[in-house]
Amino acid sequence: MPETVRMTLDEVRTLATEVFVGNGMSLANAETIAGVVTAAEADGTHSHGLFRVPGYVSCVQNGRVDGRAVPEVSNAAPGLVAVDGKNGFSPPAIVAGRALAIEKAKSQGIVALGLRNSGNLNALWWDVEQFAADGLIAMAMSTTRSYVAPWGGNKALFGTDPFAFACPRQGLPPMGFDFATSASARGEIQVAAREGHAIPEGWALDSDGKATTDPKAALEGVQLPFGGHKGNALIIMVELLAAGLTGGNFCFEAEKKAADFGAVDSGPAHAGEIVILIDPAGYDGGFLQRIEGLFDAILAQEGTRIPGDRRYVARARSHEEGIDCPTVLYQQIVDMKAG
Amino acid sequence: MPETVRMTLDEVRTLATEVFVGNGMSLANAETIAGVVTAAEADGTHSHGLFRVPGYVSCVQNGRVDGRAVPEVSNAAPGLVAVDGKNGFSPPAIVAGRALAIEKAKSQGIVALGLRNSGNLNALWWDVEQFAADGLIAMAMSTTRSYVAPWGGNKALFGTDPFAFACPRQGLPPMGFDFATSASARGEIQVAAREGHAIPEGWALDSDGKATTDPKAALEGVQLPFGGHKGNALIIMVELLAAGLTGGNFCFEAEKKAADFGAVDSGPAHAGEIVILIDPAGYDGGFLQRIEGLFDAILAQEGTRIPGDRRYVARARSHEEGIDCPTVLYQQIVDMKAG
Repeated sequence: MPETVRMTLDEVRTLATEVFVGNGMSLANAETIAGVVTAAEADGTHSHGLFRVPGYVSCVQNGRVDGRAVPEVSNAAPGLVAVDGKNGFSPPAIVAGRALAIEKAKSQGIVALGLRNSGNLNALWWDVEQFAADGLIAMAMSTTRSYVAPWGGNKALFGTDPFAFACPRQGLPPMGFDFATSASARGEIQVAAREGHAIPEGWALDSDGKATTDPKAALEGVQLPFGGHKGNALIIMVELLAAGLTGGNFCFEAEKKAADFGAVDSGPAHAGEIVILIDPAGYDGGFLQRIEGLFDAILAQEGTRIPGDRRYVARARSHEEGIDCPTVLYQQIVDMKAG
Repeated sequence: MPETVRMTLDEVRTLATEVFVGNGMSLANAETIAGVVTAAEADGTHSHGLFRVPGYVSCVQNGRVDGRAVPEVSNAAPGLVAVDGKNGFSPPAIVAGRALAIEKAKSQGIVALGLRNSGNLNALWWDVEQFAADGLIAMAMSTTRSYVAPWGGNKALFGTDPFAFACPRQGLPPMGFDFATSASARGEIQVAAREGHAIPEGWALDSDGKATTDPKAALEGVQLPFGGHKGNALIIMVELLAAGLTGGNFCFEAEKKAADFGAVDSGPAHAGEIVILIDPAGYDGGFLQRIEGLFDAILAQEGTRIPGDRRYVARARSHEEGIDCPTVLYQQIVDMKAG
C-alpha cells in the first residue's frame, strides 16, 4: 500500500463534508468546517487539515461541541458585533457575524467581532485572511485549552492562545500570519516525543517545574510562553480580550469544563475569540501603496520573507496538483463515513 | 559630592518644565512632557525619566522635533481619530486627541487613535495607562528609529517598535505592560558596552551579519526581533498599523530623514503611533469581575506577577520618599536651564 493518497482539493472538501454530516453536524456547519480543513490542506498546514477531522468528529460525538449549533449574532454597539457560538465550532460563528462586522468596519472605520461559547480547532489565519481579502486589516486572538504556565510559575493556566494578523495588498493575496503565544505548538512536542528527539530549551517544564528538553516530560509538565516575559504579557492580553471581554471561557475555566466530560485532547469548549477589523480607507493615507514600500525594503535583504508567502506558494501547487494524505489517516477518515 | 540627589516628584516636574521651556518648547508641551518624565521617575523606569531630558532638548534644539507644535485633531470616521502631531513629540498629540477618542470609544465601543508626524521618546505604558484609568482597554504600537533587522536579514530596517497594553481594574490601578518588539532595548546593549559584559545570544548581529554577544559589535551591527519569527511578525504588524495606517513614517523612512539632520541618536522624526481603545461595557460580559478571577489564578502560582505591579510599588514609594537622580545627570539638566 502506498504511504499517501493523492487527492484533489474538491475531494478533500467532499470527504470532510460527508464525514461531518455523517457524524452529527448540520450541513451548513459541515460545509464551513470542511472549507477550513480544505484551506489548511491547500496551504500545506497539514497539522490543521485532514489530520484534525477525527478531532472535530470526536468533539461532536462526545458532546463537548454542538455540531448543529446555530450561532446567534447581536449588534452590541456601533463598533461591536457579538456572536454566541451556542457551543459550536468557531468558524460557523465567524461566518454568522461576518457580514455585519464588515459593514460596520466599513462605515465606522473599526469594529470588534467577539465570539463566545465557541471552540477553535483551526489555524487562526483562516479567521483573518478572509477579512483581509475583503480589504480590511484584521487581528484575531483566541483562547484554547490550558497547557501553558504563566511566567515564573509552573502549572498550566493559559492556552497556546493563538494570535493572528492579516493585511490586504493591492493585486496580491493578503499578508498574514498566525502563531501560538506559547514557545511551541503542542503538536511539535508530540512529534518530538514520537520521533524520540529532544526539544529546545525554553519550551517546557517537567511535572516538577524544572526546565526540560525531554518531550515526554514536557507533555506531562507545562509549556512556556514564547519570548519570555514579553510573550507572557501577550498571552495575558489574549486571555483578557478573547475571553474576558467577549464572555468566553478563560483557558483555565475551559479546562475545568473539559475535564467534566472526561475529554483529554479534543479541543476547547465554550472558548472565546476576538477579531478586530480596521478599514484602512478610513485614514486615507495611501495605505495600500505605502505598505508595498515596506515589503520591498524587507525583501531587499536576502534570507527574508513576507509572512504568509510560503502558504500561497503551497496553495498554488495544491490547486494544480492536489495534496497527499497519509494513507492511514485517509482510511481512518473514510471509515468514519459509516458513523 | 554624593552620587545622587534626592528630589520630590514636584521638583522633578518643575525642573523638567523649566528646562524644556528654556530650550524652546511651548509651555503646554513642556508641561505635558515634564509629566511624562515625572511619571517615569515615579514608576522607577529611570531610563525614560530625567535621563531622557537631554534627548528631548537635543531634538528640539537641532530642529528634528518642533517643541512648539500644536497638534491637529481630525474626526476621520465614527471609529477613527487622526492626529497630525505637526512634527512634535507624541505625548501632546495624545493629549490633543484624548477627549474625542474617549468619547468615541464610549459611544462606538471601539476606536482607533492614529498619530502621524510625531516622535516618541517615552515608555509606551504612559500612552495606554491613562486610558485604562478612564475605564477603557487600550493597546498601543509605535515606530521608532531603525535598529532592527528583519528575521533572516542582517541590515537595520525596523525599529525597536514598542507594543503596549493596559486594562482597567475595579478599585485598583490598571494592569499594563509595554515592551520593545526587539529582543532587547537599545539602552540595555549600551549599558553592557559601558560596563564591559557580554549580551545574551539572540539579541544582535555584528556588522558582518554574524551573531554576536559583544555589545560593542552589536551597536555597530543590528538588533534582532524578540522571540524569533513570531516577534518578527509582530514588528511587521506594528510598522503596518503605527505607520502604514496612520500616515506616519516607517522606521526605515524616519531613519533616512534623521540622517538628513546629521542626527545620530536623538529619537524619531515624523513617526507614527496607533492606540486602539475598547470600552468593555460594550460587551456587558461582567468584564471587570471576571478578569479578577484570571489575575487570582495567576497569582496563586508562586513566582508570578501581574504586569505593571512593580511600577505601582515604585510609584507609591516615590510619592512618599521622592526619587534619586544621579548627581552628574542632575547637574547636566540644571545647567540646561540657562539654555
